[in-house]
Amino acid sequence: MDKFVKVATFAGSMLLAIASPQVFAQEESDDEESKKVVPIDKQYQTQINTLAKRPAVQAAFKAFDELEPQTKKDLITLTEIPSPPFKEAERAKKFAAMLREAGADSVWIDEVSNVLAKRKGRSGKKTVVVEAHLDTVFPAGTDVNVKQKGDTLYAPGVGDDTRGLTTLLAVLKGMEKANLETDADVLFVGAVGEEGLGDLRGVKHLLRPGGPKVDSYIAVDGHGIDNITHRGLGSHRYRITFKGPGGHSYGAFGIVNPHGALGKAIYYFTTEADKFTKQGVKTTYSVGVIGGGTSVNAIPFESWMEVDMRSESPEQLAGIDKLLQAAVQRALKDENAMKRRGPDLTVDVKLVGDRPSGRVEPTIPLVQRAMAASKYLQAEPKLSVSSTNANTPIAKGIPAITIGSGGTGGGAHSLKEWWLNDKGVLGMQRILLVLLAETGLSN
Amino acid sequence: MDKFVKVATFAGSMLLAIASPQVFAQEESDDEESKKVVPIDKQYQTQINTLAKRPAVQAAFKAFDELEPQTKKDLITLTEIPSPPFKEAERAKKFAAMLREAGADSVWIDEVSNVLAKRKGRSGKKTVVVEAHLDTVFPAGTDVNVKQKGDTLYAPGVGDDTRGLTTLLAVLKGMEKANLETDADVLFVGAVGEEGLGDLRGVKHLLRPGGPKVDSYIAVDGHGIDNITHRGLGSHRYRITFKGPGGHSYGAFGIVNPHGALGKAIYYFTTEADKFTKQGVKTTYSVGVIGGGTSVNAIPFESWMEVDMRSESPEQLAGIDKLLQAAVQRALKDENAMKRRGPDLTVDVKLVGDRPSGRVEPTIPLVQRAMAASKYLQAEPKLSVSSTNANTPIAKGIPAITIGSGGTGGGAHSLKEWWLNDKGVLGMQRILLVLLAETGLSN
Repeated sequence: MDKFVKVATFAGSMLLAIASPQVFAQEESDDEESKKVVPIDKQYQTQINTLAKRPAVQAAFKAFDELEPQTKKDLITLTEIPSPPFKEAERAKKFAAMLREAGADSVWIDEVSNVLAKRKGRSGKKTVVVEAHLDTVFPAGTDVNVKQKGDTLYAPGVGDDTRGLTTLLAVLKGMEKANLETDADVLFVGAVGEEGLGDLRGVKHLLRPGGPKVDSYIAVDGHGIDNITHRGLGSHRYRITFKGPGGHSYGAFGIVNPHGALGKAIYYFTTEADKFTKQGVKTTYSVGVIGGGTSVNAIPFESWMEVDMRSESPEQLAGIDKLLQAAVQRALKDENAMKRRGPDLTVDVKLVGDRPSGRVEPTIPLVQRAMAASKYLQAEPKLSVSSTNANTPIAKGIPAITIGSGGTGGGAHSLKEWWLNDKGVLGMQRILLVLLAETGLSN
Repeated sequence: MDKFVKVATFAGSMLLAIASPQVFAQEESDDEESKKVVPIDKQYQTQINTLAKRPAVQAAFKAFDELEPQTKKDLITLTEIPSPPFKEAERAKKFAAMLREAGADSVWIDEVSNVLAKRKGRSGKKTVVVEAHLDTVFPAGTDVNVKQKGDTLYAPGVGDDTRGLTTLLAVLKGMEKANLETDADVLFVGAVGEEGLGDLRGVKHLLRPGGPKVDSYIAVDGHGIDNITHRGLGSHRYRITFKGPGGHSYGAFGIVNPHGALGKAIYYFTTEADKFTKQGVKTTYSVGVIGGGTSVNAIPFESWMEVDMRSESPEQLAGIDKLLQAAVQRALKDENAMKRRGPDLTVDVKLVGDRPSGRVEPTIPLVQRAMAASKYLQAEPKLSVSSTNANTPIAKGIPAITIGSGGTGGGAHSLKEWWLNDKGVLGMQRILLVLLAETGLSN
């Protein structure tokens, strides 16, 4: 799970993506929508309750219990295969082998290293995806050996999202053991590139034009059995670099100064963005990192900044993006107008992150079923906004949510990441109930 | 010699302080004053010509010739004693010993490692300083071994300003050999901290309130026998750091952003500074280096810039400094006004460089005598502006100039620095003539 999740009462600040320790000094919720009470329509509660009582489903639940020692082994095995950003191939290969062994009808690895495993349904008219992500935030060389203290497993990536991968395996095995016959096909997916600069590239590729037809999308990320992310927090990220000839601060005085342009761009952007973000759906902006220059006595030859903008509204995100572009062009023009000699400044605007925004209404069947499943398992469903793989299907109009994998965890994106199997099987149970409600069940 | 010297026709772009190769892409002169023709008053030309013909002076000139092999040895010895910024003590010790051996009446090392050697005059009513600087720009560990190719000596620091130190030794030895009796005392000084962050600390200490009384100041820096720096290019340098709590770019949105404040400060400052520098004596400003921030998805906890401002006018320098201070405070206020929650930003304004500005008129005796001495030696005197140790006495109202050490050199501040003994003795001759014209000569 990447970047940010905000759930009003979710017992999971442990889910927050951690970039550096001081980053969360100011963590507070101002997401009013997460606090709203959304009712569960009776028909969905009835559907879930009825499903759960069917003998074949109960058989699958029993299988989850019996599989627990193996599921733990799988978690350790997969966690200990490093899966850094853009280097998920080795873990993908192992995960594919595991899905094959678990009984999928066909398993393949696509062009970007996504693992796909199809379990055919009776009619196969529709396809429901259950997905977890293969990548971690940890660079190559990170010690990913799993350490166990008491019942808690410690390792970078153990919870985010290796636990998710193992729930997919357990769900598939349980379905096989119980001979569950779905109407729709199920596509189990291990996706690459969810984190950071991965920029959701696995799911973007999966849902490319001409890719597999997907009717419903369940991402498994985070822990517990209460969270349901139905709003995708989109983001645009830019690296903007002004470039000039550079020169001696006294001798070359009068030439363009890239830092001058950067300062102007920040001033113009933040002044307009401040007004813009005071209205409508929560939209944020931040200049995160700046740099450039070689010496106090030299006019720099470049000046750069990295900017992050976020909103769950595609319109708002597009709107603030426009303000940034306009500010950069205005700064370029103004700095060039100010020069007394020499060549013009140029600017390079590079999009380094593009996560789509969007939401599905809490009243759609997928969300309602997930809520009913939580309720059935005696958890209080919590709706939330986050930036996960579900962003992409949501933005494409495909019903999609992200739900937890069960158990408890913390320290995501830190070397102290941990996961505890506190009734972890309830995670599989919820996934299966939502999945079957979406696919239809013949037996 | 630090930072910048601009001489209209001086054959010495080799004298330019080099921070990095691209720094000088835009080197151009817009120093109109350096191009003005300044006449030499007949009385000074007569004084110099008369002085030069006196047998005792001719004897000193002859001594300079005879000393040449030793002067070269001294140059190699001193160059090969590393003298990095703030670590001049070892070279100072050796230079003191050499001055003692050369026949100074008393030699001592002061609290900051300046070397002082007094040669008493008949009346001792006045004191004339002849100074070169001990420090180089090169960090500890730089290979300072002197390599000779043909007649050229190569080594970091060989020209700037170790050659200057050896001319002081030769002048003192020549005066001793010729038994020159001056009226004023002569204070030979090896000064620390001329370069970069040394910030002229040696000469500042020498001319402190309560320090030795100095009536006239001749700094020896740079090469040749034509340049005369009579205008001190002053500079103020600041490191300005805005600090806030930092936080997640989405979760903590609404807290202060230090980069926002920095951008505003740059915008406010450059807008005002642009107008300010369009009038009066040339005054420059440059934001040279910026930095801060840990990640694109985090609001940074600090943002900083290094700013350089220069002028040969103390009033202009003070004026532009005020604009910077006002811009910083305004930016701080505006960014704090924009915040929606959390603590205020703070700002730390640190003066990291303070070189005083000022000028002596080209009509004062010291400048006229230096010009006449160049002329006597068949060189065309060139008046210039630069940032040298002479800045400090000039700012204190003490007649002061910086003149070259003779010979030819280049690559100052680079590892390829070189010096060639092309009629180098003329450097000693000019120094001696100017010195004697200032001190008065009894024999």
